[in-house]
Amino acid sequence: MASAPYAALKRRHDHVRTAMAEFAIDALVVTSLPNILYLTNFSGSSAIVVIEPESVRFLTDSRYTEAVERGQETDHACPDLVLDAVAGSYDAALADRIAQLGKRRVGFEAQHLTVARHDWLQRTLAAAGDRAPLWVGTQRLVERPRVRKDGYELSVLREAGKRLSEMAADVLTIVQRGRSEQAIAADIDWRLRNAGFERPAFETIVASGPNAALPHARPSERILGEGDLVVLDFGGVYASYCVDLTRTVVVGPATSRARDVHRAVLEAQRQAAAAVRPGASRFAVDAAARRVLDRAGMGAAFGHGTGHGLGIEIHEDPRIVQQRPGVDTRDEALDAGMVFTVEPGAYFPGWGGVRIEDDIVVTADGSERLTTVTSELVEV
Amino acid sequence: MASAPYAALKRRHDHVRTAMAEFAIDALVVTSLPNILYLTNFSGSSAIVVIEPESVRFLTDSRYTEAVERGQETDHACPDLVLDAVAGSYDAALADRIAQLGKRRVGFEAQHLTVARHDWLQRTLAAAGDRAPLWVGTQRLVERPRVRKDGYELSVLREAGKRLSEMAADVLTIVQRGRSEQAIAADIDWRLRNAGFERPAFETIVASGPNAALPHARPSERILGEGDLVVLDFGGVYASYCVDLTRTVVVGPATSRARDVHRAVLEAQRQAAAAVRPGASRFAVDAAARRVLDRAGMGAAFGHGTGHGLGIEIHEDPRIVQQRPGVDTRDEALDAGMVFTVEPGAYFPGWGGVRIEDDIVVTADGSERLTTVTSELVEV
Repeated sequence: MASAPYAALKRRHDHVRTAMAEFAIDALVVTSLPNILYLTNFSGSSAIVVIEPESVRFLTDSRYTEAVERGQETDHACPDLVLDAVAGSYDAALADRIAQLGKRRVGFEAQHLTVARHDWLQRTLAAAGDRAPLWVGTQRLVERPRVRKDGYELSVLREAGKRLSEMAADVLTIVQRGRSEQAIAADIDWRLRNAGFERPAFETIVASGPNAALPHARPSERILGEGDLVVLDFGGVYASYCVDLTRTVVVGPATSRARDVHRAVLEAQRQAAAAVRPGASRFAVDAAARRVLDRAGMGAAFGHGTGHGLGIEIHEDPRIVQQRPGVDTRDEALDAGMVFTVEPGAYFPGWGGVRIEDDIVVTADGSERLTTVTSELVEV
Repeated sequence: MASAPYAALKRRHDHVRTAMAEFAIDALVVTSLPNILYLTNFSGSSAIVVIEPESVRFLTDSRYTEAVERGQETDHACPDLVLDAVAGSYDAALADRIAQLGKRRVGFEAQHLTVARHDWLQRTLAAAGDRAPLWVGTQRLVERPRVRKDGYELSVLREAGKRLSEMAADVLTIVQRGRSEQAIAADIDWRLRNAGFERPAFETIVASGPNAALPHARPSERILGEGDLVVLDFGGVYASYCVDLTRTVVVGPATSRARDVHRAVLEAQRQAAAAVRPGASRFAVDAAARRVLDRAGMGAAFGHGTGHGLGIEIHEDPRIVQQRPGVDTRDEALDAGMVFTVEPGAYFPGWGGVRIEDDIVVTADGSERLTTVTSELVEV
């Protein structure tokens, strides 16, 4: 499996250490697995990383130690990694390590650590009395650099988008009347694996007829019938990175209502994509899609956001949404290297719905589409 | 999709309300999605539930409201459910609801709520001054009843185990020299879907040759060759419940070392399964497996626990592990209705490994195996 080169990891560590310095933090405890993968290439299910001034302390158990040691012998090794094998509890091992650091300001990820673990660690560390470290909540110290993908990440995402697009062209041919949503979903997942994806990035959606009115429908035993709109929303994880694509097809000739809804959603997607450039507001991209659907009289049928960032996780920043007063207070402008979906939709309970989704990267002077299969309304 | 009947949900609510009374909690905020599914049948990705004395307040957004309303019209409706549609932030909606409850003791799930959300909610609620609720951390109020599966859950798990076993018999036939680990994993996932599973319960493992020495290997492009041991570890989610199975096969005739290791692991599994009965210690079950491998001189090659509970999640209590001083302090005895895996293994770096896994339910007078495909060493 591909993984980030040593130099890319080194730059990521530099970003995080710079942020640590801003908050006067001597060591950062990273418990979020996607953040750990970003900093070390580790893709297992259990580890804790402590970013210290001179080293990256890596705590994991016997299931993973051999794989980590092997990885350190490659040119994708993690810089300055020191492996600590955990025999008992991870948090006890972490408390030991922090205690060894002496009296310092130790940051933790407040958006990932649970209250129970936090309280246990704080109680345990307080036992050191005067020498107890100061335990400081931090937010997004690792997520912030993750928002702008580096050269390695963009090369992986381009390859993933290309593979997903080629596969999507085939998928349009397996949607047939008489087949069930579940059978089509199973075929899509098999094709994902055979296209080189490690796994589906989320539960594949095949939503037909009235089910297409549910943006997050699960594949059912429903058999596709004449006239059904079918929303196909699937994605894969390639070399640890997620891509995501949606097309809506129709079984047999499309009604004029189906054509109208599809045309409006496609135009909304085009307008949103056209608004993507460095310096643009993420809210303006959402507004561009919403304006088209509002004018078509379908504003109320578009109940979700226009898009979400993606990368190691299927939902990341930036969120391409309507600005909600008091909620969406961070209005950072789009910047080169950000990658996100553009996926407006329109849903009509009892009738059906349409969604069209592509993945886009912000470039120095505009945007580049990572997924490229036809967006026209295909009649199958 | 099958889901728990109204009466089963009602009994689960009663269990939780009894536990709430013990801690003098007036309302319990449930943020863990598996716990929400257990209490309400909701299987989406975003919701918060507040268990109040007379109602189950259900907060979700427009993506899910229609599905929830539909569900309430069936005989799998959630008792006393009151739907609150969330337009902006979930936590703001939650704070509003808690404020409406007046000055009370409100429990939250300390093992699930993050420090950042906790701090925001506490600050926001404190603004009510004298009328601010007391915010109380709780642990395992919902997980505790989940450990003993009810009649509905056991019927689902039996059906899931039967389907997985039938499918596993077929899987043994698709392991062939010349095929890659990834291609076999894709076939397994496709068969899971076609056997009625909603999705794989975890990333399918196909680990051949030296890769079989890594208990959590990921399928690679490695081609199976003569003499390889191949660990096949896969599971599916059926009607929201997980089952999990491992078999190890050999490509071509087995060497005597492969036979020895397989025989020892199989005997370890049999001894562990034989130790399962109500009242037995979970540590004794682990010890039974470990004793066999120790005597065979393979104790050091068995680095993980003997098993894990499973149900809505693939890893639940009880954990069938070695008792670690200071870590595994809860020694609750096994009891009827508990469901877990028994999966000893032996791993030899550079050479390969063997693991054999079945799912077992504790019955009134012993145990019942949910997975039944042959455990003998199959030569493919």
